Amino acid sequence: MECHDYKLTRTMERENLNLNPLQRAGLLTPEAREALFEFGDGYSVCDYCAGRLDEVNKPGIEMFLEDLAKFIDADYVRTTHGAREGKYTVINKICEPGDTIVVDGNAHYTSYLAAERAGVNVIKVPNSGDSRAEITMDAYRETLENAIDEVGEIKLALLTHVDGDYGNLTDAKGFGKLCKKLGVISLLNSAYGMGRLPIKANEWDIDFVVGSGHKSMSASGPIGVLGIKEEFAEDMLARSKTHTNKEVELLGCTSRGAPIVTLMASFPAVVERVNRWDEELALTRKFVDNLTEIEGITQIGVTPTEHDLVRFDTPILNEIAKKHPRKGFYLYEELKNKHIVGIKRGQTEWFKCSTYGMTESQRDYIANAFKEIVEKYKD
Amino acid sequence: MECHDYKLTRTMERENLNLNPLQRAGLLTPEAREALFEFGDGYSVCDYCAGRLDEVNKPGIEMFLEDLAKFIDADYVRTTHGAREGKYTVINKICEPGDTIVVDGNAHYTSYLAAERAGVNVIKVPNSGDSRAEITMDAYRETLENAIDEVGEIKLALLTHVDGDYGNLTDAKGFGKLCKKLGVISLLNSAYGMGRLPIKANEWDIDFVVGSGHKSMSASGPIGVLGIKEEFAEDMLARSKTHTNKEVELLGCTSRGAPIVTLMASFPAVVERVNRWDEELALTRKFVDNLTEIEGITQIGVTPTEHDLVRFDTPILNEIAKKHPRKGFYLYEELKNKHIVGIKRGQTEWFKCSTYGMTESQRDYIANAFKEIVEKYKD
Repeated sequence: MECHDYKLTRTMERENLNLNPLQRAGLLTPEAREALFEFGDGYSVCDYCAGRLDEVNKPGIEMFLEDLAKFIDADYVRTTHGAREGKYTVINKICEPGDTIVVDGNAHYTSYLAAERAGVNVIKVPNSGDSRAEITMDAYRETLENAIDEVGEIKLALLTHVDGDYGNLTDAKGFGKLCKKLGVISLLNSAYGMGRLPIKANEWDIDFVVGSGHKSMSASGPIGVLGIKEEFAEDMLARSKTHTNKEVELLGCTSRGAPIVTLMASFPAVVERVNRWDEELALTRKFVDNLTEIEGITQIGVTPTEHDLVRFDTPILNEIAKKHPRKGFYLYEELKNKHIVGIKRGQTEWFKCSTYGMTESQRDYIANAFKEIVEKYKD
Repeated sequence: MECHDYKLTRTMERENLNLNPLQRAGLLTPEAREALFEFGDGYSVCDYCAGRLDEVNKPGIEMFLEDLAKFIDADYVRTTHGAREGKYTVINKICEPGDTIVVDGNAHYTSYLAAERAGVNVIKVPNSGDSRAEITMDAYRETLENAIDEVGEIKLALLTHVDGDYGNLTDAKGFGKLCKKLGVISLLNSAYGMGRLPIKANEWDIDFVVGSGHKSMSASGPIGVLGIKEEFAEDMLARSKTHTNKEVELLGCTSRGAPIVTLMASFPAVVERVNRWDEELALTRKFVDNLTEIEGITQIGVTPTEHDLVRFDTPILNEIAKKHPRKGFYLYEELKNKHIVGIKRGQTEWFKCSTYGMTESQRDYIANAFKEIVEKYKD
């Protein structure tokens, strides 16, 4: 049979400054590139497996999971196929079909899909409804208390640590304490957090936390992290009745190759960069300041931002589009000429972006590029 | 914090002749190695996503899935995180907790785990109970008919196309026809088949078929293939009520990077090698003949073998171990000196191996190596 051409190159996205928030913190480290070479082949991590992925010693998956648990202050850690798969695993195991869970209103779509697949209902905590789109712990408390009054038992509450629309950072510690007080199991979705900023699951009284290797931990996709508090480990990591060495909820094993070795290889660099989160945030804030100096560009979400993912309203760029012969495409094309990619073709009314991991001069270059484009076309 | 040393090299397993059946057919093609370079970074396949992984056009995932469906003669195809995840998806969607399914007695442990995670009971079809360990369609029919009599409704029957213990090839077509006749939904686990030998899901009346990219399709783990018959597609690929573009059972997306691009890059070579399956099988049979010329080595499972994964009883190697100063470890060490790896340290009573994809002279070399070792030590 004849195969199509699958266009398996990605030169432009790799070689230019990529503002797509999905892509910034998943860039491989040099160490991960080497690991990819070593372990690219199919079942590569399983040469020395005695039956449990989490106990493989060559490569040192067991030691890695110990380090990872320490890093996020959780009692147990397993890898999953991604944050969404981690959320599904928790919801599916903790809840029965027909149960109700509470989820913040800025949650990623996969939180809803995980709930839907597990057959549970969702009550939303509203965000502030203004341009800050903030999830406050007061709102969470009110919704959760009302939900308990109304439904009876709420088995699980989910909080998005950093949402993917505004990059708002929520109060994970306040959430953990609130859930503990109300006797509700807590799940923190830190897909945009873990690997960028510090996670202290036990200190924050969080029962389950998920992270994303491909989104925020410089690993090849797909891979996630699931942190588990001691009291839930027996249930969540229960062994099979027929195959007593295997963990049922993980179907025995999860990551068999490239994703886990790249996660492991990048891990020391990730630990180190999380220590420098304050510097990263300062650079992002300076970038936001530079960009919002342009009249007609404002930051949406909580200000000053507390994360590198930032959303901008850009009426000035949209005004230009209305008059430009290339319509909305001018912006994509002008940026591409300046070696900047990652903002969708045709989009000018608003955009979200991240400059995570870029140097200060790269960020300045990008902000100046926008200034030059606006300068070139306005009136 | 201080990280352990994760020992992220795999030189020995990569650079020597590796007999581990898990490793043979997952070796990357040169094209897949290139794709790994291009798409190694985190969320790399998602630059041009408009909301659905299976519809991404750059890289050409949509075209690839069309080709793949044609290749296995299925109506719909999706990638999963592995064959086990594909089996769980089908069992979980088709069955209710408490339902009973029928599974062949040579099934992989993950078939049981998938059933257990979904809360369903399993009735086993016994194998022949002798050294052939064969799953016949007569035995399958009898068990399935009895199960229907006893339980009432059997919603799903699973057949392992090629099992991982003996490499026995089952009659997938007979199974499909039988299930159709008895009104039972059929699921074929072709983790050791798809990518090595031809699959004709529709022609065989198979409702669901799963394959494994890392086991048999020259892809980086973890990735699987799920083939779906038309009449089940609406249910299995149902969209979310709240996020109407997203498929619930796949949690929106599965493979976000290295696994899917390596599967895609290797695919033309995989299509081509499946056409040459007969040649492969002839070379394996010659290898088995050469090895079983040694007195004290016999092939277990159906003979002549119909797959490259072969199991041997090796009392002669065990006899040597009893007298050797290095005990059972001598075999591993002698083989390693001859640049052959993939048989567990200390194991001498029996082993399973595969020479899939090796040249004829490499296979002859390996058979001769065993002859030399036996010659060196016997008496």
